[in-house]
Formats: sequence, C-alpha cells, structure tokens
Amino acid sequence: MRVAVIGVGLIGGSFAKDMKKLWPETNILGMDSNQDHLREALDLGLIDEKSDYEALSEVDMVLVTIPVNALVMELPKILDATGEETVVIDAGSTKSLICETLENHPKRRNFLACHPIAGTEFSGPSAAIEGLYKDKTNIICEVEKTAFKLQERALELFQAMGMRIRYMNPVAHDKHIAYVSHLSHISSFMLGKTVIEKEKNERDIFDMAGSGFESTVRLAKSSPDMWTPIFEQNKDNVVETLEEYIQNLEQFKQLLLDGDFEKVYNEMNNTNRIKQILKGIPLTKL
Amino acid sequence: MRVAVIGVGLIGGSFAKDMKKLWPETNILGMDSNQDHLREALDLGLIDEKSDYEALSEVDMVLVTIPVNALVMELPKILDATGEETVVIDAGSTKSLICETLENHPKRRNFLACHPIAGTEFSGPSAAIEGLYKDKTNIICEVEKTAFKLQERALELFQAMGMRIRYMNPVAHDKHIAYVSHLSHISSFMLGKTVIEKEKNERDIFDMAGSGFESTVRLAKSSPDMWTPIFEQNKDNVVETLEEYIQNLEQFKQLLLDGDFEKVYNEMNNTNRIKQILKGIPLTKL
Repeated sequence: MRVAVIGVGLIGGSFAKDMKKLWPETNILGMDSNQDHLREALDLGLIDEKSDYEALSEVDMVLVTIPVNALVMELPKILDATGEETVVIDAGSTKSLICETLENHPKRRNFLACHPIAGTEFSGPSAAIEGLYKDKTNIICEVEKTAFKLQERALELFQAMGMRIRYMNPVAHDKHIAYVSHLSHISSFMLGKTVIEKEKNERDIFDMAGSGFESTVRLAKSSPDMWTPIFEQNKDNVVETLEEYIQNLEQFKQLLLDGDFEKVYNEMNNTNRIKQILKGIPLTKL
Repeated sequence: MRVAVIGVGLIGGSFAKDMKKLWPETNILGMDSNQDHLREALDLGLIDEKSDYEALSEVDMVLVTIPVNALVMELPKILDATGEETVVIDAGSTKSLICETLENHPKRRNFLACHPIAGTEFSGPSAAIEGLYKDKTNIICEVEKTAFKLQERALELFQAMGMRIRYMNPVAHDKHIAYVSHLSHISSFMLGKTVIEKEKNERDIFDMAGSGFESTVRLAKSSPDMWTPIFEQNKDNVVETLEEYIQNLEQFKQLLLDGDFEKVYNEMNNTNRIKQILKGIPLTKL
C-alpha cells in the first residue's frame, strides 16, 4: 500500500508508526510545510521519502493531519490531486466547516471526515508514539458521503490500530467536543496564566506546586498553532461552554462569599461522580 | 520509636508505610474517628494497633493527618495529651488558622506546622502508597516556635523520606497555596460540573472525552470532606484567586467574541512557558 501523510507531527507521525508496524511493506510519503519537521520525520523513520501533491495521484490513502485552518485550505487541493480510488482522511478537531467546505467537491466521495480523540500536549515528529490510537475513539462524520469501498479501507486501518468507531453528524460533533475537549484546554490555559501572572512578583510560588496542579494545567502546554484555528472554527460552541463554566465558577465563588459551606460540600460531592464517568476513558500514559 | 498516626487515610497511611520501611522496628499506633478505616489500616498493616489519646503521653512522634477543620478542634487536645518530649506534626493544606489556634498553647514548642505537597485524588487507608513523599516539597511554618530537638527529630524523618524542605510564614503559605493548589481544585470541580450538566441530556458526550479532559478534571474526584474545610479556612485567598481566574476566562471569551485570534494565539503562546516551570515539579505516577 502507498500512503501519503500530510503533516508529519504528533498525529500524522503516530499514524505512520502504527502503519509501519502493522504493515511493514507500506510505503509512506511525507509532506509538510515545515522542512525541518519533514527532515526529522525522515530521520526518525516515520516516512520513507519526502514528496509533494503531484505524487497523490498514485497513493491508496492520504492522511491529512494539519491544523484545522490548513485543512480547510488544503483539503480541496488534495482531493483535486488524488486518484479516483484514493481515500483521503483528515483528523481535525472541528468537523462542520471542513464538511461544508467539501460538500460540493467533485471528489467528496473520496473523503472521510474523522476525528480521532487522541493526542498528548506535545507536538512535532519527535512527539509521535506507537499505539497512540489504541482503544481511543475515532469519530467519523457524514460516513454516508464516502464511497463504501473507501470507507472499508479506512476502517480496516482503524480497526487494526485498535480504535473504536462512533458515527456523528458534524454539527453534533462540534457542539459536544467543545465541552469535553475545547473547554478543558481553555480552563487549563487560563489557570496557567493566572498562576504565572502571580509568579511575576513571587518567584517561589512554583516550589509549592504539586502533581495536582501539574495535571490540571497540563493542556496549557498545547500548541497555539493547532488550537487557535480550532477555537476560531468552533467559536460559537466554545463561547457557550465558556459561559456555562464561568457561571458555575461565579456561583461557587458566591457560595464561598456567603459562607454556605454545606452547598460548597454538595457541589463537590455531586461532581465526584465524574469518577465513574472517567473509568470509561482510555488514557495515554507517557 | 513509638509513633501515633491520627487519621489513617491517604496522607497518614502513606507516612506510616514509609516509616515501616525506613525503620521496621517503629511501633505505630493508629487513631481515627472512622472505625472502618481503622480496621482497614490494621488489616493493611499500616498500623500495629488501634489506640486513643490516652496513649499519646508515651509516644515520640504524633502525625496528625485529618481534615483542617478537625485539626483546629483536635490539635489543642492532642497537645494537652502528649508528653513533654513528643513532637506533634500536622499536614494540613491551610496553616494560618491552625498556627493562630495554637499560638498560646502551653505546649506550642511541641508542635511543628507542616504541609507536605503530596497526595492523589484518592482517599482512605487503601489509597496509601509507599514513596508518596519522595522528592516532594514539605512546607514548614513558624519553625522557630518549635523546640530545636523536636525539629531535628521531624527533619530526620522528612529527610529519610526524601522530602525537600521550604520554610514560610503561615500567611504567605495560605496566600500562595491558594494559587497552585486550591484554585486548581475549583477549576477542575467546576469543569466536571459543567460537562456533567450537559451530559444529563446528551448521554454520549463522554464517549468523546480523551486523556486531555481526564487530566484537567482529575482533581474533581477529590474528597469534599477534606476540601470543604480548606476552602472555608482559606476563603479570602481562594476568592481572590477565583476572581483573577474568572477575569482571565472572561477576557479570553471576549477575544473570541471579538474575533481577535492573534491575541488568542498570544495568550496561549505566552502561557506555554508553563512547560519550563512544570519541569521542576516532581510527579506522583500511579
């Protein structure tokens, strides 16, 4: 099988690692706007050769793992360049604008809109890890718009990689992912900001930080290049979740100010059931 | 050495485990208002025998690892009951009210006010783990008020357990810990609440949650029995950090609404330096 990976960072590189392991004979072409990343991916053995869109007419599968603003720009050109029997798969964290953009593309049937819920706070080819996708959820949108044979080829890969598949429409995807992913990133970035601002005057504050703080602020290490366009494309949903979050924080603050610690207790006690909910989430241990 | 551990949960139980390993001949008396925990601690071998305050006159060291509201109630009685050469150590996450409460106690010199920055989101004797305190910071307040010989005895234990020591006054402790610990817990609890509220109507939302969400919401599993009195005692500082956090979230929301994604990018990019800061924080890997 000939595969092209466009964007050889954490997401694309981890796909490449798994494919190399599952099907060692796979020939992987790498493309990236960042020449350093491309060279690094080649050195790390994630890809077999550097290539460009001209080669897309001769590959069986294209994995497009680039920021969501670049997806909207590049996916139409990529589909233009691919063969009739090529499946083009994205991994963007937003789905509505991407699906809208490609709605009337003559090769819409060659595209499979995906969002594998996997990743770490690191980025670039050196962040790629084998098995990143094992037991993770892959959300596929508008599956009915993809040619059946091409769906099958993609699913064979996802299943071999150990992913579980969920089907969803792009609007529902963007609404829900705002809660369980995009909001977490903002809460973490702003927690980091709040504490760093304090630290300006108080150098020793981080000596007092423990693993609880580290866990809560982990996502604040994430790449702004990846996350800015996600927030831009999913702005309406993200603002809505942010409003609900701020409202809950305000309410908690008011309970503290009122000295109503019975309700403070109940707020936390009710939220403790997150324990049961989290048991179902497979984790990436680094 | 004879040691009493009052409160045989995660914190006290982990102290007991380390002491048993470091000095196998140590005799550990356990006390707890929860009889089930006491029985469990005995079954797990964390303590050698159940005991009560009457035995405190004959021990060398007392570790008081109970919620901070109970500390304020019990520490004066515990000091009343201990011998002249006993060192009483607490592990509370607030320090001001505790130090004030004991300020004029006739046995103030027997007390060492400590806050080991260590823990997990779990609780109870079964959550106790060996090596929990290795490489963690232990903040000691008002060290000058503790008898020198008793300081030494406590430091010998902390050093053998691998802790690093920082000295701080109780007011500064409570102010700073609000940022790096107490605020993280609220941000996490309210994130959990926001997503759970949504899930009422949308059962499938957690299928979409990944390890990023899990990390950010981890502290929402924490015990309300432990955290309610912490927020009560440190209310003023916690409300202040919460106001700053909400203000940062509001500002980020406004940038989204204004469509100013250059500033959104900069906000995240500036906060990325949390990476360097976090490198210095030793983690508890479970």
